[in-house]
Amino acid sequence: MDLWFTETTGDAGLTLKVKETLFRGQSEFQEVAILDTYDYGRMLTLDGLVMTTERDEYVYHEMIAHVPMNAHPAPRRVLVVGGGDGGTVREVLRHPEVQQVDLCEIDAMVIEQSRIWLPSIAGALDDPRVTIHVRDAIAFVAEKTQAYDVILIDSTDPIGPGEGLFTEAFYRDCLRALATDGILAAQTESPFAMPAEFTRAYSKLFKVFPSVSCYYGAIPTYPGNFWTWSFCSKQHDPFTQLETKDLSALEETCRYYNRELHRGAFALPSFARRMLDAIRQGTDAPPSLA
Amino acid sequence: MDLWFTETTGDAGLTLKVKETLFRGQSEFQEVAILDTYDYGRMLTLDGLVMTTERDEYVYHEMIAHVPMNAHPAPRRVLVVGGGDGGTVREVLRHPEVQQVDLCEIDAMVIEQSRIWLPSIAGALDDPRVTIHVRDAIAFVAEKTQAYDVILIDSTDPIGPGEGLFTEAFYRDCLRALATDGILAAQTESPFAMPAEFTRAYSKLFKVFPSVSCYYGAIPTYPGNFWTWSFCSKQHDPFTQLETKDLSALEETCRYYNRELHRGAFALPSFARRMLDAIRQGTDAPPSLA
Repeated sequence: MDLWFTETTGDAGLTLKVKETLFRGQSEFQEVAILDTYDYGRMLTLDGLVMTTERDEYVYHEMIAHVPMNAHPAPRRVLVVGGGDGGTVREVLRHPEVQQVDLCEIDAMVIEQSRIWLPSIAGALDDPRVTIHVRDAIAFVAEKTQAYDVILIDSTDPIGPGEGLFTEAFYRDCLRALATDGILAAQTESPFAMPAEFTRAYSKLFKVFPSVSCYYGAIPTYPGNFWTWSFCSKQHDPFTQLETKDLSALEETCRYYNRELHRGAFALPSFARRMLDAIRQGTDAPPSLA
Repeated sequence: MDLWFTETTGDAGLTLKVKETLFRGQSEFQEVAILDTYDYGRMLTLDGLVMTTERDEYVYHEMIAHVPMNAHPAPRRVLVVGGGDGGTVREVLRHPEVQQVDLCEIDAMVIEQSRIWLPSIAGALDDPRVTIHVRDAIAFVAEKTQAYDVILIDSTDPIGPGEGLFTEAFYRDCLRALATDGILAAQTESPFAMPAEFTRAYSKLFKVFPSVSCYYGAIPTYPGNFWTWSFCSKQHDPFTQLETKDLSALEETCRYYNRELHRGAFALPSFARRMLDAIRQGTDAPPSLA
């Protein structure tokens, strides 16, 4: 039998040949599935959308974690919002300054199944520095004030359970939950494949954070493949701390991230730059730019 | 009717919903097709592989052309090998120093059909500075000595008619065909999706050119989406000339390329950097790196 998984965004999509379905269940929030694919290894999908695969997960997880972590002089307390597969936590823990990582994931099934089927990604969740909170992050963050040096929003797309994580109210709560020199990074979709979602995220981030920029990476299994994250800061810029840090151990481990790439990832293609300029000026970016 | 085009590389692929097939013919060399897709506009395929689409062609064409062109102080004579769709020629002609562009494309059907169906890409082929040579580039380049400031190898993959364009002999002919301060850029596949082809290209380029580096871009419709080009030079590095050039007109036109991105595109992800280091040392890169 030839079995193919296909994810479409609009009228374009990714298709992957599947060996077998390892798990498929309906949680309170979404359909959770783990498929074993020929080309990308095991893969977590939520409501039919690719979240992570064993083969290319490192791009996303290294980029969401190391860019903000290396822009902060001493990131001791870190909050990961979403990210129940554990990949972002794994990368955060590579920074020796880290003392406390809170993971706030709404869906226990994502954590459970990732632990069973994706041990190379979820293994770090057992680290003693990690506390797992199976809760809605909106309520969790609302209780916090100056509690974190770095917050990473490792969310699904702004539909379904992830929708509330793309609102101005949530970003304001994150701002308050950050220390006075805190940094927030959030996955902000593909400006090429999902210009409306990208525009929605930045139109709100620009209103809330004193300093907002955008960086990118190439993720083979995500729509449009040109993916972005926001870098939102109260004080620090993305580059100054980078010069004083010893990155040798981290760079040996990473498969995507390195010091030069950290700088290069902020040099956006012109279409994305123009979209951000338009959003900053309060106008919606015309779709023709992408 | 729901009609979908699918291109697979190994057990992964891209799928695009198709409005209609505008042209499908067998040339002396390959199957040439033009499809009208919902998401990516009109698309040229050769032997079932995506060559270019109206929606994302600018990434490839801007990157193969402007990086070497802006690294050269005065690129007057340019050769484009392959590239029968005309997109690379169009970008080359944006540089006012250009006096002569030779396009050497083996397959007349690619040129003819691109002219009919892809006028926004092929239109530049009518520029008086352009001479079209419908010939095998191997024989064409063998006759040339110090004839070009810049050579761009805009080839298909190293299978079928494109195979001879990835050989050491062809690269040596290109070296001789370049002026003493000439620059060559070639498309060099995806180190993520096609590590064997990437390795083959660089193992030969390193043997032939005094200075070889690699730069990347994110192309939604190409396998693995993380795409590369080589920058091969006799004298010039990729960056020095960039500082002295007035890029304002070019940057206004480009949708992907800009001065900062030119620099950032050479800051490769670690997996690609390690593959290149291994190739340079004469060992094959282990596939596990990607």
